[in-house]
Amino acid sequence: MSGFVSFVSSGPGDPELLTLKAVDRLGRADAVLYDDLSSGAILDHAREGADLVGVGKRAGRPSPRQDHVSRLLVDYARTGQRIVRLKSGDSGVFGRLEEEIVALIDAGIPFEVIPGVTSASAAAAAVGIPLTRRLTARRLQFVTGHDVAGKLPEDLNMAALADPQATTVVYMGKRTFPAFASALQQAGLPSDTPAMLAEGVSTDAERITASTVATLAAALEEGISTAPALIFYGALMAPTQESPA
Amino acid sequence: MSGFVSFVSSGPGDPELLTLKAVDRLGRADAVLYDDLSSGAILDHAREGADLVGVGKRAGRPSPRQDHVSRLLVDYARTGQRIVRLKSGDSGVFGRLEEEIVALIDAGIPFEVIPGVTSASAAAAAVGIPLTRRLTARRLQFVTGHDVAGKLPEDLNMAALADPQATTVVYMGKRTFPAFASALQQAGLPSDTPAMLAEGVSTDAERITASTVATLAAALEEGISTAPALIFYGALMAPTQESPA
Repeated sequence: MSGFVSFVSSGPGDPELLTLKAVDRLGRADAVLYDDLSSGAILDHAREGADLVGVGKRAGRPSPRQDHVSRLLVDYARTGQRIVRLKSGDSGVFGRLEEEIVALIDAGIPFEVIPGVTSASAAAAAVGIPLTRRLTARRLQFVTGHDVAGKLPEDLNMAALADPQATTVVYMGKRTFPAFASALQQAGLPSDTPAMLAEGVSTDAERITASTVATLAAALEEGISTAPALIFYGALMAPTQESPA
Repeated sequence: MSGFVSFVSSGPGDPELLTLKAVDRLGRADAVLYDDLSSGAILDHAREGADLVGVGKRAGRPSPRQDHVSRLLVDYARTGQRIVRLKSGDSGVFGRLEEEIVALIDAGIPFEVIPGVTSASAAAAAVGIPLTRRLTARRLQFVTGHDVAGKLPEDLNMAALADPQATTVVYMGKRTFPAFASALQQAGLPSDTPAMLAEGVSTDAERITASTVATLAAALEEGISTAPALIFYGALMAPTQESPA
């Protein structure tokens, strides 16, 4: 007897950005394995008596190893229960979804993936900046600023990333951005390209700051907070056209 | 007296992929201006008596011009009502959001943007393919396959798009894909790069077909359906690892 796993994307943090399908799956789960960013009020949708198991990173504590999380997921599912594996943002976008899917396939456990709102969409919406524009931003790209060792990945396609006509969003890239910005400038990106730092997106701690690539890199060199963040740069709509809301 | 406009992203089509916030705004709107892809059961969340105004493209009929839609939106808002402007997918991703935001700013009408699930996330979730992978797909890019005249845009960054290590999603690119694929191959993308056609994502008509760039281009040369579609290519997870669900 095997259980069933729903990978549920919880969105960027605001519980109101859960989808109806995510709420449904949470309400029917026997156990919820959640990341730290998809905790809090989001877990209020779980039914009373469900097991709530935190498996995510927490500031100041080492995070559980990915293979440990995958094994825990398989073990829970093997008890024959309905499991929700809650992941922040959209689970398919820098959510380490592949490793857990492969573990389930190897174990013969059926699953589904419920998509969600990725943090880039929420940050852009918060300031009224469309991620694509009809004439000047026909390409939108998401990249991660750190590899499995937490360093700037060595094999990034810098020519693709240094295109000022695209909108680029760097996930988990706050710490490595000074080095990343330097590589971008070497690849030809003007240092005064508009940039934006989005921290704590869609939460009470949301803080979005307009800047340029060079200025933001210098500021992050000075010191960074531990808040999860996205960095935007490229063909962003001019700040004068930002939402007054 | 001016109204208030909520740009509400309705997600890829499945009404269950609406966010709680989208449902809330629909339930409180005096008027809903909707695109064709965000109609049907999604509109059941509007309150009784709300004006429901279709402004989107419909197969076989010319679509209203964008400036006409923007003017209609401003006119509705000026009556002092709560307006929902419903857009499919995530409104910030190829949703022509900029033109309407600018029209509201020019008219001094306050607004908010509610992010949503973009179709790429839903298509990938349907087949259990993560959009990013830890080692082989650290860059995810979205591009549109047609310009304002419906042709393949001339200024695409083909070097960025011909990277087999990225996951690329082409929005609205079914008709121009044969020419696009030819340009990709000229830019160095292997013709046997995995590709996937995703039609009618998250609706009853959903149909997702695994292919290669060359084979898919040849098939689309033969003839295409009118169903809205996304094309994926690049570092897609092998089909043998697809979800059995």
